[in-house]
Amino acid sequence: MKTARIERVMDRLASMGMGQLIVSDPDSLYYLLGHSYDPGERLLALYLNAEGKAVLFHNHMFHFPEQPGLTIAYYDDVDDYMGLVAGTVQPGPLGVDKFLRAKFLVPLLEKRPGLSVRLGSAAVDWARKYKDAEELERMRRASQINDQTVGEVIRQIGEGLTEQEMADRVCGVHMRLGADTRVEQLVCFGVNTAEPHHVSGRTRLHPGEAAVFDIYAPVDHYFCDMTRTVFWKDVTEEQRRVYEIVKAANAAGVAAVRPGIPLREVDRAARDVIEQAGYGEYFTHRTGHGIGLALHEPPDVSQTTEEIIEPGMTFSVEPGIYLPGKFGVRVEDLVAVTEDGVELLNHFDRDLIVVD
Amino acid sequence: MKTARIERVMDRLASMGMGQLIVSDPDSLYYLLGHSYDPGERLLALYLNAEGKAVLFHNHMFHFPEQPGLTIAYYDDVDDYMGLVAGTVQPGPLGVDKFLRAKFLVPLLEKRPGLSVRLGSAAVDWARKYKDAEELERMRRASQINDQTVGEVIRQIGEGLTEQEMADRVCGVHMRLGADTRVEQLVCFGVNTAEPHHVSGRTRLHPGEAAVFDIYAPVDHYFCDMTRTVFWKDVTEEQRRVYEIVKAANAAGVAAVRPGIPLREVDRAARDVIEQAGYGEYFTHRTGHGIGLALHEPPDVSQTTEEIIEPGMTFSVEPGIYLPGKFGVRVEDLVAVTEDGVELLNHFDRDLIVVD
Repeated sequence: MKTARIERVMDRLASMGMGQLIVSDPDSLYYLLGHSYDPGERLLALYLNAEGKAVLFHNHMFHFPEQPGLTIAYYDDVDDYMGLVAGTVQPGPLGVDKFLRAKFLVPLLEKRPGLSVRLGSAAVDWARKYKDAEELERMRRASQINDQTVGEVIRQIGEGLTEQEMADRVCGVHMRLGADTRVEQLVCFGVNTAEPHHVSGRTRLHPGEAAVFDIYAPVDHYFCDMTRTVFWKDVTEEQRRVYEIVKAANAAGVAAVRPGIPLREVDRAARDVIEQAGYGEYFTHRTGHGIGLALHEPPDVSQTTEEIIEPGMTFSVEPGIYLPGKFGVRVEDLVAVTEDGVELLNHFDRDLIVVD
Repeated sequence: MKTARIERVMDRLASMGMGQLIVSDPDSLYYLLGHSYDPGERLLALYLNAEGKAVLFHNHMFHFPEQPGLTIAYYDDVDDYMGLVAGTVQPGPLGVDKFLRAKFLVPLLEKRPGLSVRLGSAAVDWARKYKDAEELERMRRASQINDQTVGEVIRQIGEGLTEQEMADRVCGVHMRLGADTRVEQLVCFGVNTAEPHHVSGRTRLHPGEAAVFDIYAPVDHYFCDMTRTVFWKDVTEEQRRVYEIVKAANAAGVAAVRPGIPLREVDRAARDVIEQAGYGEYFTHRTGHGIGLALHEPPDVSQTTEEIIEPGMTFSVEPGIYLPGKFGVRVEDLVAVTEDGVELLNHFDRDLIVVD
């Protein structure tokens, strides 16, 4: 099976010293085959090798469309399906993706003692980083839906809902506008906004408090992800000051994006704004993450990344300031790297909003 | 660290020829430590050995409560956390649970060449099969919530909602009554009821059609799971006949449950009713599955299981008949095995319901 995507992956894999690969991450399978599903506890895996062999191990209780060049090895729950896999793998180092569970890997190693197994995910992850025109178009559409969603829900913060109920509203709008599935949303009210990893619960909003909407969903398989922080009825001087710093940090991060420069410069640009305003210790996470078929995927937008920005990359720019016991602010947009600069995928207003 | 649960697991592991184990399944971690979380792409794993050592490898960005006898090995994203694990593991066979991903297992094997790694999940899965009094109490409460939920939602089938909207209603009631998190629900209308693995979509119900509610959620960590099939406004003779067969199969399966007999006899009893009525080829799945911290866990209630029923086991009894292109019926209840028989965890009416 020779498609452009599979060839890119296998070329990369060869440069890593491997000639065969097992892919089991459903997102990567969708990327390579245009179809996938969550097999739960069962095996769904694609074997690829340098000679163009492509074998999909697939439980016959699910559906998978046939494709030219793809051999589908159907199995039943009572079959020795790892025996099938072991009989397909060739000698020489085998790459497996990081997603593969021990349930499958340990029996494979037992059936093929001496086989050298290495992590091969990086080949697929590398290919997935560079979105093509069709992928970019889907990501634009997903973010348009997110822009529209945040516009609908932030007006509802005065209705007395809990965080969880508001998160449900977000899901409802997402589904109505075309999201594939419900995803837990991150809605934080009041003091909870100071926790970047808060889980939406039963807290209700009070006048003068911050509300953070960090909302995301897959639309036609590609994720959107954005954050807006708004205030209800009133805003203090400190809230306003912190908001403006974070907004400026977001803008500085986005402005730093262009091909050829190190990704960590994006993190640096956003972080500099916050540090120079004296809040550096309260920006406690990386500036962003790659996004596409997965909500979080390479590249990493942090001080530790070594990567260089290249066209086709899509990632978030989401600086924040979190004042423990008080409030937090985060402003997040998605960007796509173009041939000579940056395209913002989110367009919803970044100016401070006080909802009446 | 010596708790009753850990000792049971390590005794079982010893009988499998292993003296050390890595547990990474969050449900199993909750079972053993009373706390857990979904670490996403990061490592969360408990190392146990026969000498009573217990080390939890845990990213410091999450929270984990300290416990007597438990060593918590904190790590940061930039640390060599698999080096920490490799330095803790002793010589001799190491059990790993089936949940562990290659992302962690492959580096461990690289750092400890020659280490014998085997699947050790069965030791924890075995212990988890036998629910203690506290677990049973939580499962009763979860199923009470499910009984109440199905009662509230089936009356709403005349409102013109789509399957997905009705599934949202189910989630809303679950959350209000105390479920821990939203879970995708399986609501099927009309011809979709003939597909046991249908995904709720945009289909709406028409008079005379079947509606299947297969609803489940974790409540205080333990799952409920039940199915009721109802009809809207009218029911045909064939629908009524099929319904009564499935209801009788469910009752026969439940009646077959008692300690000491093979679990496959439960499947046999339910299957016999359906086969004798001439619908055997349309009952296309196993009769049930174990349930507890996970929606699906051992034991398997099928013809291929070798297990004997024992007190403390909890599983579903869910026969069904699926007539392709027409309709399907499934009736599912949870049971707990007692010292001398069976306790039904679901009490909602099993008689045929035609909603006006």
